[in-house]
Amino acid sequence: MQPLHLFMLDTTDPASEPVRLDPTTAVVRADDLGVTRGDGIFETIAVIKGVPQAVVAHLDRFDRSAAMLDLEIPDRNQWLHAVEVAAAALADVEGAAAIKTVLTRGVEGSGVPTAWALAFKADDPATPRAEGISVVSLDRGYKHDVAETSPWLLQGAKSLAYAINKASLREAARRGADDVLYVSSDDYVLEGPSSTVIARIDGVYVTPPTTLGILPGTTMWDVFSILEARGERTEVRELRPADLESADALWLCSSTRGAAPVRTLDEKDYPVDHALSDEINAGLDARTK
Amino acid sequence: MQPLHLFMLDTTDPASEPVRLDPTTAVVRADDLGVTRGDGIFETIAVIKGVPQAVVAHLDRFDRSAAMLDLEIPDRNQWLHAVEVAAAALADVEGAAAIKTVLTRGVEGSGVPTAWALAFKADDPATPRAEGISVVSLDRGYKHDVAETSPWLLQGAKSLAYAINKASLREAARRGADDVLYVSSDDYVLEGPSSTVIARIDGVYVTPPTTLGILPGTTMWDVFSILEARGERTEVRELRPADLESADALWLCSSTRGAAPVRTLDEKDYPVDHALSDEINAGLDARTK
Repeated sequence: MQPLHLFMLDTTDPASEPVRLDPTTAVVRADDLGVTRGDGIFETIAVIKGVPQAVVAHLDRFDRSAAMLDLEIPDRNQWLHAVEVAAAALADVEGAAAIKTVLTRGVEGSGVPTAWALAFKADDPATPRAEGISVVSLDRGYKHDVAETSPWLLQGAKSLAYAINKASLREAARRGADDVLYVSSDDYVLEGPSSTVIARIDGVYVTPPTTLGILPGTTMWDVFSILEARGERTEVRELRPADLESADALWLCSSTRGAAPVRTLDEKDYPVDHALSDEINAGLDARTK
Repeated sequence: MQPLHLFMLDTTDPASEPVRLDPTTAVVRADDLGVTRGDGIFETIAVIKGVPQAVVAHLDRFDRSAAMLDLEIPDRNQWLHAVEVAAAALADVEGAAAIKTVLTRGVEGSGVPTAWALAFKADDPATPRAEGISVVSLDRGYKHDVAETSPWLLQGAKSLAYAINKASLREAARRGADDVLYVSSDDYVLEGPSSTVIARIDGVYVTPPTTLGILPGTTMWDVFSILEARGERTEVRELRPADLESADALWLCSSTRGAAPVRTLDEKDYPVDHALSDEINAGLDARTK
């Protein structure tokens, strides 16, 4: 990622304008809980030709994460406006761009959140979309019902405490793979470190439910809409790793990469449906909101 | 905590002097992986009358965490020097003080870590030491052997991704308690969100082993030394929650609070051994290194 524009938000005055700063400016104090504890939340919103994608779904999820971390629910108008301002600043960017919205619990003891929107040039998704990605499954360590039994483990919240997600991607790289698909300790298919999985099984496009402590996919829902518009059947239901054996196509969906077809999962090869993947990604890139 | 002195470290030049800044200066960029992913490590070192406590144990653990996160191992001399400089700046502080050492993976794509030592006034430990603390046990969600089976989950690393620890403490507060004792999903006693547990069972002082994916306690080892010096038996072995039923005293040990006697765990009252707790904490406060 290449940071391009930075906008700080004053959450104590939701009507205030975002303050534009040089994106290389340091903005977080050494005693901000965002950096000392990963105590905060974020979203990454793709921007195509100045149009931020799936903004409502992202800001809904931002609210959901805030509630799970006992943070004050972000002011919707303030963040919508910040995203619009940041997206407008990205209008001239060629290729993939995105906005990261961040809300931390703020300086310890202050009670005042730290908040910003960072507009950046994202990695080019062309290669993973066209060639597919190799994926390894990794145990996430938790049981499938952990979000219900142990909400303090914050499963399903998009928090800043993502060191495990990065460590999982390094483990994938060590195994020669591009990405990860998490599985629960009791063998339910979950999600990727920053993506939602879709499997085509017996002609039905299936994704696991958020009751498994996974994030509600923002891109995934738009992929489902594209599929449904062409008459395909979609379904949200629990999947076991064994169910993926009978899948004839898999995708990992995320904001800036779109729908990346899975070429291999662990030792198994999956056919890449190039035509459909291209159609889905063209549909994603053509979104007007 | 009240930040008093901030020292930035240039890890690309280990011989360089720490740079002193106003502690309220923003020092972290919006694209630093420390704040966007909690991708970094820390230690909190107590300072008593200008003397940093258990520095070698802390810096050993800092190295261990770095290795687990695939960060370059911190230069020992550089960090020792930074801790000494920061501790000297705290020499005149009345009461509890501490230094937080932080190393992040740095700005995304830069390959250059961000590093600092923050010297601060800590919460006064007198009340928890004297009156004891109330504790609830919470499921950590992982099995007892997760560190061995799934190292990408970073159990046993003191990372900046501590949102779960803070959420656990909020859950404890909701239940009217001061602190948390984590238990594995398969019922092994682990540790607190920022402490090591010691249980006195049949006259033996017992703490669980780090093979359970818990941090090597720094304060705990000095407590064991104090106990051994007075002729007590200490032991590192696995404990089940049922074993704590037969304990006649419990402590949670951490850097700035020292050995806090547990007054209640879940629904059970534990006698507070005031005389021994005072003796242990006096011993901790008298450390010269």
